Amino acid sequence: MQRGKGCGSLSNRGSTCDAVHTGSIFAEYDVMLLCHFIIFDKELGMKNSSSMAVSEMQSCIDACAQCHQICLKMAMTHCLKMGGKHVEPDHFRLMVNCAEICQTSANFQLSGSAFSARLCAVCADICQACADSCRELDGMEECVQACDACASSCRSMAA
Amino acid sequence: MQRGKGCGSLSNRGSTCDAVHTGSIFAEYDVMLLCHFIIFDKELGMKNSSSMAVSEMQSCIDACAQCHQICLKMAMTHCLKMGGKHVEPDHFRLMVNCAEICQTSANFQLSGSAFSARLCAVCADICQACADSCRELDGMEECVQACDACASSCRSMAA
Amino acid sequence: MQRGKGCGSLSNRGSTCDAVHTGSIFAEYDVMLLCHFIIFDKELGMKNSSSMAVSEMQSCIDACAQCHQICLKMAMTHCLKMGGKHVEPDHFRLMVNCAEICQTSANFQLSGSAFSARLCAVCADICQACADSCRELDGMEECVQACDACASSCRSMAA
Amino acid sequence: MQRGKGCGSLSNRGSTCDAVHTGSIFAEYDVMLLCHFIIFDKELGMKNSSSMAVSEMQSCIDACAQCHQICLKMAMTHCLKMGGKHVEPDHFRLMVNCAEICQTSANFQLSGSAFSARLCAVCADICQACADSCRELDGMEECVQACDACASSCRSMAA
Repeated sequence: MQRGKGCGSLSNRGSTCDAVHTGSIFAEYDVMLLCHFIIFDKELGMKNSSSMAVSEMQSCIDACAQCHQICLKMAMTHCLKMGGKHVEPDHFRLMVNCAEICQTSANFQLSGSAFSARLCAVCADICQACADSCRELDGMEECVQACDACASSCRSMAA
Repeated sequence: MQRGKGCGSLSNRGSTCDAVHTGSIFAEYDVMLLCHFIIFDKELGMKNSSSMAVSEMQSCIDACAQCHQICLKMAMTHCLKMGGKHVEPDHFRLMVNCAEICQTSANFQLSGSAFSARLCAVCADICQACADSCRELDGMEECVQACDACASSCRSMAA
Repeated sequence: MQRGKGCGSLSNRGSTCDAVHTGSIFAEYDVMLLCHFIIFDKELGMKNSSSMAVSEMQSCIDACAQCHQICLKMAMTHCLKMGGKHVEPDHFRLMVNCAEICQTSANFQLSGSAFSARLCAVCADICQACADSCRELDGMEECVQACDACASSCRSMAA
Repeated sequence: MQRGKGCGSLSNRGSTCDAVHTGSIFAEYDVMLLCHFIIFDKELGMKNSSSMAVSEMQSCIDACAQCHQICLKMAMTHCLKMGGKHVEPDHFRLMVNCAEICQTSANFQLSGSAFSARLCAVCADICQACADSCRELDGMEECVQACDACASSCRSMAA
């Protein structure tokens, strides 16, 4: 369940997420997060530590899905268009590898695999390497950000 | 870029998405969509037909990613736990196939493939079949909804 | 079951595949195919039309797996190393797309999906396009051959 | 390059793999292996340690591809058909996870990733767990064999 979609799915059932509308002090990200947790609470009644574990895993799945999408999109559009250093073998290969391990890591978590933490540990290291490689190049800020976020989230899950 | 994350990424830069806070008549889904389009406008300055095409493709990628996640998660957790009709070969196989074609369809669009429409056409039919199969079973509402939404979005892209 | 491995698994049980040794007029490929069919007959007792369908599908799975491997390997090693026309966006993207659709097409057939023929039809067209693109470049003969073979095999399955 | 196909690709160029026809003392598997190495030698002229490394990696890719195919096929056909213990969540999930990590591990090696050994280490452990789980069930011998072989091959690559 993605954050945005999760909110949407609730509203489709005639409910509203009042927290979204009650103030102007929230940045959108906070609203999303708040909305996300409220939905989890409402739908699943999970207000305990189990809820924390589930939402932490969902956050990691989201981070992996996001990193997968951005690495794949950037590699296959921006990097190929730019050429030069952007298609240097080590860099380009790392982006494609990063996209794939993020996809696999997300799939393991979605399936409830007992090996999820193992995958997250590998994923964290590859994301870190990809972030470092992207930092050297122009126009890759979005990719750096997604890789850093995914590395951090995966490291938490792997611990 | 996922909807929720998209919104978040803007707020991280100190901006706010005012549309979120200005009224209570919006259900969350509309807020998400609105927020999504505003971000596209702000970030990319795309208010023309090209913007429509890009955001329509991003919507389809989101729908595919969402459907992939829910089908895979439901099959590997809910269906396996329930047993009985939930693991009947035709049904279970369809859920796994649906998860995979959604992933592939999203990947083609992310890579800017000239064959994206072809993939979306196949994806739409498989999602439709999966939605119909899930409608027959208990507790699969989330899956029905994600498959219907993805089928609809893919059909638009395939046209 | 891959052809080579299939033959191997028989021999591991103390049997031999005599057809391999009875003449020198066979090129290896024919021997492999012959061996493949003999094993299917011996192991499964399938000498009827169902046998034909199963071994035809296994041949297509093999062709898809082979094409997936060669396209991915060539793109990520040869093409990235060569640079120039080998990393021109349309060509490189096509190779990555071809690798992925072959993987998905094989997975659908392995899972016994009712949509296998639909996937094979799309796969055939993408393999054909990839073969044509590779024909324009140096050192891509192996890729051209794998794509042509997969396109042909998928077209048979799609019919 | 798969073993069987590798042999075939040579013959398609008008060459023959004489070892196949010169005696009856070879079981097919040995013929395949011999043929496989001869091709490597002929095509690439690799008779040194680099050759060993390349052919060891190709063997591991083959083992991963084989294990991926058999786990996916057995799970989606045999296990779903049998029901009962064959679709018990922990067992079935492990088979699907095993199929996916084998696919990812093969893809990393094919792309020449610097993280191939890391992936192989995780893959070896998952294959081992899957082999152990399959050993408890009827009719899963082919899967046990493929998982054991892949675990062993991946462990060598990871070392």
